[in-house]
Amino acid sequence: MSEYTLYCFAQSGNAYKTALMLELCKLDWQAKFVDFFNGEARSPDYRAINEMGEVPVLLHGDARLTQTGVILDYLAGMTGRFGAKTPEEGREILRWLFWDNHKLTSYTATYRFLINFAQTGTTPVTQFLEQRMRTAFKVLDERLEDRDWIVGTNASIADISACGYLFWPDEFGVDWRDYPGIGAWLERIKAIDGWRAPYDLMPGHADLEQPRD
Amino acid sequence: MSEYTLYCFAQSGNAYKTALMLELCKLDWQAKFVDFFNGEARSPDYRAINEMGEVPVLLHGDARLTQTGVILDYLAGMTGRFGAKTPEEGREILRWLFWDNHKLTSYTATYRFLINFAQTGTTPVTQFLEQRMRTAFKVLDERLEDRDWIVGTNASIADISACGYLFWPDEFGVDWRDYPGIGAWLERIKAIDGWRAPYDLMPGHADLEQPRD
Repeated sequence: MSEYTLYCFAQSGNAYKTALMLELCKLDWQAKFVDFFNGEARSPDYRAINEMGEVPVLLHGDARLTQTGVILDYLAGMTGRFGAKTPEEGREILRWLFWDNHKLTSYTATYRFLINFAQTGTTPVTQFLEQRMRTAFKVLDERLEDRDWIVGTNASIADISACGYLFWPDEFGVDWRDYPGIGAWLERIKAIDGWRAPYDLMPGHADLEQPRD
Repeated sequence: MSEYTLYCFAQSGNAYKTALMLELCKLDWQAKFVDFFNGEARSPDYRAINEMGEVPVLLHGDARLTQTGVILDYLAGMTGRFGAKTPEEGREILRWLFWDNHKLTSYTATYRFLINFAQTGTTPVTQFLEQRMRTAFKVLDERLEDRDWIVGTNASIADISACGYLFWPDEFGVDWRDYPGIGAWLERIKAIDGWRAPYDLMPGHADLEQPRD
């Protein structure tokens, strides 16, 4: 039995944020697979775990945590890693966590879901989402133009949160050369000791389940 | 010169969250009108104040704060009001702040904007947003089925955040009788000493500028 249990699945960038944090902090954690694509997150059993019907959920001792921003903040407090050094920096990190949830992850995740998994093709809804996703990319790209990390001089949970969906540019048809600040920053994140890609870190990706020829 | 300055406009539910908090805490604050509907929030001058191009922004001494979740948390810390009593409660409040930003306010505000201000009529995009808005209403309604407040036994910034857009049901075509838990909870919020409606609290609403006959 590991110290931390994470309800997750490989395609969830929100789950990846927390899995990556657990991994970078070298914590003892295990994944519990949620069969999202077959509706498990909407089931009564799962709603009893998280009434918001969302992935991930983190179990640690008696604590049951949901919402990636809360989980990242909790783990930063537990480990002393990737957190704030001052109250001002703490507010700055929290500010970017909210922005990510509302403006970056929200539109990117939903756009990717429709285009890549639901395969709706281009529709008024995907056009609406893509435009807002690209607006968010522009804000982040400009933020990173002359800085290595979103807040302060070190990687923080603001970076770990914001990168959650951004290692899949092919799945939402973006070339990071169009957003060079983001592209260079993602390479910096990949260079952090212990970094692993989403599909290598969580269960449920077909490539992992079915051995290739 | 008031102690707090809030960049805001009457139609912004996000600004309302923070204006209501300032008012309920009986703080000395003044409104600075942002002409959102004429594009001020997208102007370079405003971007210099908030690179995210969003309203509200709160000035307090040397601090310049953006993102309502951060502002509410900051004011709760300053005043000792509407905040958490324990770390567990703090995580629970933060969890609902994130959920509100991502799932409740995000869809409600955008749907209301398109239907009520941009007046697009029903489109695939408004149908998409309305469905997600109503899913969020259902989560909140069920949460409030057997509780007076979203977290714990008292009103908190989780309530002040989540109610931000919900005093305008006519503007997004919802009848709270369909969500009785929400309806009763909004009445409890209105009964808090000092409560005022959004259009009475912030500048820029036509009804306030043009005296009625």
